[in-house]
Amino acid sequence: MALSLPLLGHLDPAFIDAMDATSDMLRKVWGTQNQRTLPLSATGSAGMEAAFVNTVRPGDVVVVAVNGLFGERMVEVASRHGADVIAVEHEYGTPVDVERVVTAHPNPQIIAAVHAETSTGVVSNIQELGANKGDALLLADCVTSIGGMPIELDAWGVDIAYAGSQKCLGVAPGLAPFTISERAYERRVERPANWYLDLGLLGGYATGSPGGQRTYHHTAPTGMVVSLKAGLERIFAEGLDAVYTRHADAGKTLQDGLEDMGLALFAEQGSRLAQLTTVQVPDGIDSAAVRGYLMAKYNLEIGAGTGEYAARIWRIGLMGPNATEANAHFVLAALQDALKNA
Amino acid sequence: MALSLPLLGHLDPAFIDAMDATSDMLRKVWGTQNQRTLPLSATGSAGMEAAFVNTVRPGDVVVVAVNGLFGERMVEVASRHGADVIAVEHEYGTPVDVERVVTAHPNPQIIAAVHAETSTGVVSNIQELGANKGDALLLADCVTSIGGMPIELDAWGVDIAYAGSQKCLGVAPGLAPFTISERAYERRVERPANWYLDLGLLGGYATGSPGGQRTYHHTAPTGMVVSLKAGLERIFAEGLDAVYTRHADAGKTLQDGLEDMGLALFAEQGSRLAQLTTVQVPDGIDSAAVRGYLMAKYNLEIGAGTGEYAARIWRIGLMGPNATEANAHFVLAALQDALKNA
Repeated sequence: MALSLPLLGHLDPAFIDAMDATSDMLRKVWGTQNQRTLPLSATGSAGMEAAFVNTVRPGDVVVVAVNGLFGERMVEVASRHGADVIAVEHEYGTPVDVERVVTAHPNPQIIAAVHAETSTGVVSNIQELGANKGDALLLADCVTSIGGMPIELDAWGVDIAYAGSQKCLGVAPGLAPFTISERAYERRVERPANWYLDLGLLGGYATGSPGGQRTYHHTAPTGMVVSLKAGLERIFAEGLDAVYTRHADAGKTLQDGLEDMGLALFAEQGSRLAQLTTVQVPDGIDSAAVRGYLMAKYNLEIGAGTGEYAARIWRIGLMGPNATEANAHFVLAALQDALKNA
Repeated sequence: MALSLPLLGHLDPAFIDAMDATSDMLRKVWGTQNQRTLPLSATGSAGMEAAFVNTVRPGDVVVVAVNGLFGERMVEVASRHGADVIAVEHEYGTPVDVERVVTAHPNPQIIAAVHAETSTGVVSNIQELGANKGDALLLADCVTSIGGMPIELDAWGVDIAYAGSQKCLGVAPGLAPFTISERAYERRVERPANWYLDLGLLGGYATGSPGGQRTYHHTAPTGMVVSLKAGLERIFAEGLDAVYTRHADAGKTLQDGLEDMGLALFAEQGSRLAQLTTVQVPDGIDSAAVRGYLMAKYNLEIGAGTGEYAARIWRIGLMGPNATEANAHFVLAALQDALKNA
């Protein structure tokens, strides 16, 4: 509905107010006081780009915890900006081994990890990383965790985080919520190799005190920002705790049901995301045929695995307004049908 | 209306079809056969970023015709990527002097210019630049020209162009239509310092033959793409020539009326954009007071100038569905009121 409202001009005071309100709610969802908290004008992947291009200088040591596709992508992005990357590889389906990551280098500039790995359905302990980061900046990918589970960036010691609008926030894809601590901002790269995502320039545009002077940087996607604001308002109307409980309950119902059907979950027990469930495709079952059947008969899209897991796992999201026990039961019934008849 | 439709998944075949249809229409609006024509998942400024980061190697000579803010920005963006930039400065309000630009260096890698300068209301002759570009790649900013005036990229010899969705295409801000010729693509930077806008990676995602295999790169802003498609369909339903004539007529009515009121236009005669009219603020008139009056009384937003022209010119856009003679008369009447009573 918010997307169908008449568009505001990007310098209209009403839009500036909407941007401020959005940033305030992002701070609450993220558990941060960072003044520099804003939705970047691009999708979640641009959040990762912004995180590294603004903080990595050639030769900087960046330790990346790799336990899925998005950790791999961090390695690629950081190395494009000249980082000396130490990739700490994990078996897919397992959480980040904090001990291995924090001992991978005595004094890295940055430690980076994915909070909720969409490719494997695994949650990692960012708080423990933060407690052991030393002088490094801690950078966390929160694309799939934001709005779906508790996050306390400041208490955990996270310096830089980014997310996407289209997962548990339940809004259309197109914005990358982003936040950076003063400590990280002070260490940032001046004039990074990216004008569009230069936090030094964006600061004057999107943050600052309400009613203060804004500098024109680029034309913000005003419709998208207003819709993100509406999505956040929906979350706060329900209540953050209630939203998290709903995600947890829906995920538990789905995961219990899958195991009752004799299916094996992929993510390691104790580290399973509620909002994104990974399940092993049983021997003899054609993964793509099942997915096609679900789409054709139930208009239900479940994901394939990524890379070598493409045909070996399914990924089932219950995110945002879709995270309900009713939907969990619907998925279970549809999958049961598909396993017999696809 | 398109933005309020239920969202498509970014890998849904229906979305892939929408993306293909959108790219096809962009080719027609731009007058190009370039296979690599697509909406980038960010605003127009990211189009400029993509244009330079994918084509500039450190030390490359880039000649930039600067006759307004967006030419200045090109200088900044190109130099961040290591270009040896030759900025050919022009007086604001004048079009690009092709002779000066093409003789600024004997053999530049890139020549860059803005087709329609939003900051000054001036159109430049890109065709003449193309006819004299030599071996250089020609890069054109079409943010304010696309959909508002005839463009023939292939016939003009333009190799790389970008635009925005929110001006004459009449869609919400959030996408950057982009196109690159095979010739330019072959000369591109492999693994540029920007993963998000890496054309080599985007190629597998968004282009290719209809129905062909797509590679996952990032989650596309599906709602925005569907709305851009709807905006382009509206343009083709009216007819491209009719759309251009409507913009030209509305602009002429506005400009004639402003001169009849005794106001002086800012852009040089013969190089005036119809879709964006610049007018000099008369002596003794408070520019901001007039703009505030128009906003408060008529809900009518006109732009200030940029930089040193902030208080010296107004910028009045008649773009997309707003480009009508009725709106031109409305602006004239409102401005007449404001000049007396603001």
